[in-house]
Amino acid sequence: MAGKVQVGIVMGSDSDLPVMQEAAKVLAELGVGYEMQILSAHRVPEDTAAYAREAAGRGLQVIIAGAGLAAHLPGVIAAHTPLPVIGVPLQAGALGGVDALYAIVQMPPGVPVATVGIGAARNAGILAAQILSVADETLRQKLIGFKEKMAAKVRERNARLQESQGEK
Amino acid sequence: MAGKVQVGIVMGSDSDLPVMQEAAKVLAELGVGYEMQILSAHRVPEDTAAYAREAAGRGLQVIIAGAGLAAHLPGVIAAHTPLPVIGVPLQAGALGGVDALYAIVQMPPGVPVATVGIGAARNAGILAAQILSVADETLRQKLIGFKEKMAAKVRERNARLQESQGEK
Amino acid sequence: MAGKVQVGIVMGSDSDLPVMQEAAKVLAELGVGYEMQILSAHRVPEDTAAYAREAAGRGLQVIIAGAGLAAHLPGVIAAHTPLPVIGVPLQAGALGGVDALYAIVQMPPGVPVATVGIGAARNAGILAAQILSVADETLRQKLIGFKEKMAAKVRERNARLQESQGEK
Amino acid sequence: MAGKVQVGIVMGSDSDLPVMQEAAKVLAELGVGYEMQILSAHRVPEDTAAYAREAAGRGLQVIIAGAGLAAHLPGVIAAHTPLPVIGVPLQAGALGGVDALYAIVQMPPGVPVATVGIGAARNAGILAAQILSVADETLRQKLIGFKEKMAAKVRERNARLQESQGEK
Amino acid sequence: MAGKVQVGIVMGSDSDLPVMQEAAKVLAELGVGYEMQILSAHRVPEDTAAYAREAAGRGLQVIIAGAGLAAHLPGVIAAHTPLPVIGVPLQAGALGGVDALYAIVQMPPGVPVATVGIGAARNAGILAAQILSVADETLRQKLIGFKEKMAAKVRERNARLQESQGEK
Amino acid sequence: MAGKVQVGIVMGSDSDLPVMQEAAKVLAELGVGYEMQILSAHRVPEDTAAYAREAAGRGLQVIIAGAGLAAHLPGVIAAHTPLPVIGVPLQAGALGGVDALYAIVQMPPGVPVATVGIGAARNAGILAAQILSVADETLRQKLIGFKEKMAAKVRERNARLQESQGEK
Amino acid sequence: MAGKVQVGIVMGSDSDLPVMQEAAKVLAELGVGYEMQILSAHRVPEDTAAYAREAAGRGLQVIIAGAGLAAHLPGVIAAHTPLPVIGVPLQAGALGGVDALYAIVQMPPGVPVATVGIGAARNAGILAAQILSVADETLRQKLIGFKEKMAAKVRERNARLQESQGEK
Amino acid sequence: MAGKVQVGIVMGSDSDLPVMQEAAKVLAELGVGYEMQILSAHRVPEDTAAYAREAAGRGLQVIIAGAGLAAHLPGVIAAHTPLPVIGVPLQAGALGGVDALYAIVQMPPGVPVATVGIGAARNAGILAAQILSVADETLRQKLIGFKEKMAAKVRERNARLQESQGEK
Repeated sequence: MAGKVQVGIVMGSDSDLPVMQEAAKVLAELGVGYEMQILSAHRVPEDTAAYAREAAGRGLQVIIAGAGLAAHLPGVIAAHTPLPVIGVPLQAGALGGVDALYAIVQMPPGVPVATVGIGAARNAGILAAQILSVADETLRQKLIGFKEKMAAKVRERNARLQESQGEK
Repeated sequence: MAGKVQVGIVMGSDSDLPVMQEAAKVLAELGVGYEMQILSAHRVPEDTAAYAREAAGRGLQVIIAGAGLAAHLPGVIAAHTPLPVIGVPLQAGALGGVDALYAIVQMPPGVPVATVGIGAARNAGILAAQILSVADETLRQKLIGFKEKMAAKVRERNARLQESQGEK
Repeated sequence: MAGKVQVGIVMGSDSDLPVMQEAAKVLAELGVGYEMQILSAHRVPEDTAAYAREAAGRGLQVIIAGAGLAAHLPGVIAAHTPLPVIGVPLQAGALGGVDALYAIVQMPPGVPVATVGIGAARNAGILAAQILSVADETLRQKLIGFKEKMAAKVRERNARLQESQGEK
Repeated sequence: MAGKVQVGIVMGSDSDLPVMQEAAKVLAELGVGYEMQILSAHRVPEDTAAYAREAAGRGLQVIIAGAGLAAHLPGVIAAHTPLPVIGVPLQAGALGGVDALYAIVQMPPGVPVATVGIGAARNAGILAAQILSVADETLRQKLIGFKEKMAAKVRERNARLQESQGEK
Repeated sequence: MAGKVQVGIVMGSDSDLPVMQEAAKVLAELGVGYEMQILSAHRVPEDTAAYAREAAGRGLQVIIAGAGLAAHLPGVIAAHTPLPVIGVPLQAGALGGVDALYAIVQMPPGVPVATVGIGAARNAGILAAQILSVADETLRQKLIGFKEKMAAKVRERNARLQESQGEK
Repeated sequence: MAGKVQVGIVMGSDSDLPVMQEAAKVLAELGVGYEMQILSAHRVPEDTAAYAREAAGRGLQVIIAGAGLAAHLPGVIAAHTPLPVIGVPLQAGALGGVDALYAIVQMPPGVPVATVGIGAARNAGILAAQILSVADETLRQKLIGFKEKMAAKVRERNARLQESQGEK
Repeated sequence: MAGKVQVGIVMGSDSDLPVMQEAAKVLAELGVGYEMQILSAHRVPEDTAAYAREAAGRGLQVIIAGAGLAAHLPGVIAAHTPLPVIGVPLQAGALGGVDALYAIVQMPPGVPVATVGIGAARNAGILAAQILSVADETLRQKLIGFKEKMAAKVRERNARLQESQGEK
Repeated sequence: MAGKVQVGIVMGSDSDLPVMQEAAKVLAELGVGYEMQILSAHRVPEDTAAYAREAAGRGLQVIIAGAGLAAHLPGVIAAHTPLPVIGVPLQAGALGGVDALYAIVQMPPGVPVATVGIGAARNAGILAAQILSVADETLRQKLIGFKEKMAAKVRERNARLQESQGEK
């Protein structure tokens, strides 16, 4: 992991790792330091509150929290920190993630959670980097490059499609 | 309020009082002692955790928590107490309570919340009394009487309908 | 099964057993006596009514009922008993359990069902134990221990994650 | 009310009368005898079961049952009678009737309820008449005339619209 | 197929046969004569209208129509016949049958469709038999026997469960 | 109405006129000839089929059909004509238009309906004009002008907002 | 590909090709010239805007755009062209396409998108041909023939079903 | 407005002002400079793209975009800027905002939008301030004070409730 840890990535169980690692991966690509934690708003509420309360003091600038079902983890962390908190609704159980989406995005006035799409941990990582870029011009330039690479990939795929159509 | 306080009725704002008082009213009818508290999982998380942690020691036996939107209050309380917690999803905002329902009922394994219908604070009160009746035969008899009164009311209404149909 | 039977676990078909046994398992872990019954609000309505009417007299203190689709079993049982009834919406058919959730949780005023998440039979078992603990201090202590074990497991998993991150 | 009673119209409360009377009205128009009853699957379950069990013996041929929320009335009646049962989901509470629709239409295999639209008590009455017309050719002719009158009304409205457009 | 054809079972494609045959099977069990037709409100609208218009004249008494997606088949048939029409919403496409349910059950005033659960063709067959039993006491007795057999099966399963629990 | 009639605007009842007239209004603005008809897939199915079958022969090029609830009108018209059919789901009844949306947009393979938003009759009119502009360059130029006017209005509103902010 | 290109088929990724090719296939069957493009409202917004702005000038008459999730592609293209735009919501992610459906069909006043069913690329192709047939009588005749072939296929399947039933 | 403009608040119409001003108000309370713009992804797409492209160069650090229906504004802006974009789904039309929520939150991989609750413009403002506080310790202190004031208000309301209960 590169440099000082600025982003905390938190999830309720190691079974969420395969999805949440997408956030870590994109942060690593962009050279942003992060840490990962297994915490639970329902099973270790004191640890979770302590983590959130101490996050700013430890130098963290953004927290990403992923949770499924009646997903309380992002909101509970937001309750305990002035830092921006990004919530990732996870697809789990019979309702397929719409429960987690509602339980994360519909926060009451005063305590926002920046919600991304269901399972969209990679987007959570990018959003965290965008937030950090408010204070980091180098990172902003990297994000601009990142956007350009995405565009190039679409153009390349289109070029290949045009070729294959021409061949027909 | 009759006798010792056995039920805590908790809500996030005094704007929830008109609905949540229905729980209090039915408990009063049944002679069950209760207290009401304004607490918020997001705005006073420490107070909320403290209340939940101390509830059993203070003699409470059941906690009823009502919340709307991304309703975390019942789940957060359940995280901090071994007592049974009853959740009342409240109708608020654009999604009309389905967000609160999902955010309360879909609790992860290990930390249940006994969920009643959207806005069903009166049913929460009755359920609290049913729970207490596990240790209180007098209360159980009152609940049996309560059921009989409900039945009598339906029969009376039907009798009146039959009369009015006969008259036609 | 340990001790006297205090919890009835009821389901509409033996095909529901794999899910509903999770309730039995956690009650067994906690040393609570239970029985399991196949009953159906639609196919053996008289048997179901009789079971519910006689439950309190037979010494049961809580009934857990699981049902899918237009799930009537918990509500029909609640109509016939003053005991607290816990409803488990089961995932079945094209609507994936949201039909069962609505058909169980949205009970009319006067007859509550304590609803847990879709398929959350384990949580139904824990909730039943919480209810019984109102009259059973030993059981409450077990539930506190149960919460501590859950917390320990989360902490252990986090420790392992921290290690594996350190190794990288 | 004309002739012998062939249709029972059942509802949980007199507050449902304004909607459910639409069923009665169309049956009266078609000369079908009916009765109305206030019964409740949750508050007077024994009365409801008895009514359903005795319906066929009393000469009823169809039962219409309207209910809102976790609507169990049509299904519970269907459990106790071989007669065709028509369910009318009523619009009530925060979910606006979708709860009642799911709780009525998604009956398990073996016990159907003939479900009409949310609040569609008039259609329930027409459907009851269609069912009775299986054994009543005069009633079938009335239903054919009924359809013709509906068609005439649409044509008349269209003629008026064409006139008003011509005038412009 | 037994006796004269009283029930038409209609579907839009032979791919619906595996589900819709459940209706045929239960009618055959009950000795009710039926026919099956592939018709489509969208692809052969004239044939469909003709079939519906001529159904009563051909001696049919009930039509069962199954359809998925924007399911118009039951409603279009109901538009062309005074017979009772039973609609079976089929599970197809991305919305899993909720589209078909809404497109069938929410018929406008004047033209009801007796809707059963998503994919519930067997229940459609039973409902058709219940409707025919209005004019057929022998069939009603069969339906009573059918209900008893269902009850016996549940009791038998419960007995087996009790045994297996006793053995433990 | 200007020039020859190219667009048929069809609805099930004169109660739909206030919404559906928005389609007529925008067509009049754009100088496109239209007619309005009250037709019903369920109440006058033969008239509806005849109208759709004859539409192309009468010189119509597009049909707009608005319907609520189990909205079959657009699909039934599309079944009877090779013309493009635009469907407008109307907000009616307890489900607020989502039923009409699903019943219109989810057409089976082979028979599309060009669906616009719930209640979006004005957009249906614009879409009809866009379709006609495939054969009418003057109309396309009008549509380009129409887009420019919309843009101008947004810019004007923004200018006013900037002024009012400056004043503060 | 036959003749001059009149239809642009646009999608966000080559992973959408298997679905979107259904539009191309039916256009090829009907002898309509088309092109396919990979464009993205979010990754190459400038290219997408340019494509839409230049489409009419390049002789395109209709654009079909398929997109999943928060599907912006059809609406963004419609913002930049006076041509009729057909939107195909694609099934992707946890919400199964209902997100894409809402994000495409609910366009604001002034900028319609002609929406077809979720994944219904084939219907999008047919709709494009119907639109082109406004200026192309030969194509209209082909569409009439296309409808007849569909009808013949249904009749053939029904004939086979009748045979197989007769054989039984 | 205090100091240099760091936040752009964008909406599609002045009819959205009453809701979106809540974002402005809380930013003003916190001393953060902002500007408001009426822009539309569908009606002035070039202006919108230009605004987004130039935002970072003009010194903006965060953009808040509110939109209803098929809400594309936040996503379109995010496509054109490396800045963090906050999306506010607005309650409009028949689907009550769930369309806007899905159309904003479900962004495809690579282009996140930080979504807040339906109509939650005030939370969008707070989130913008939290993001800016990554580079502004004074603002972070203000946010901590802001949280404390919220907590104080809840405690005060609870104190008043306790008093009023004591008085009873």
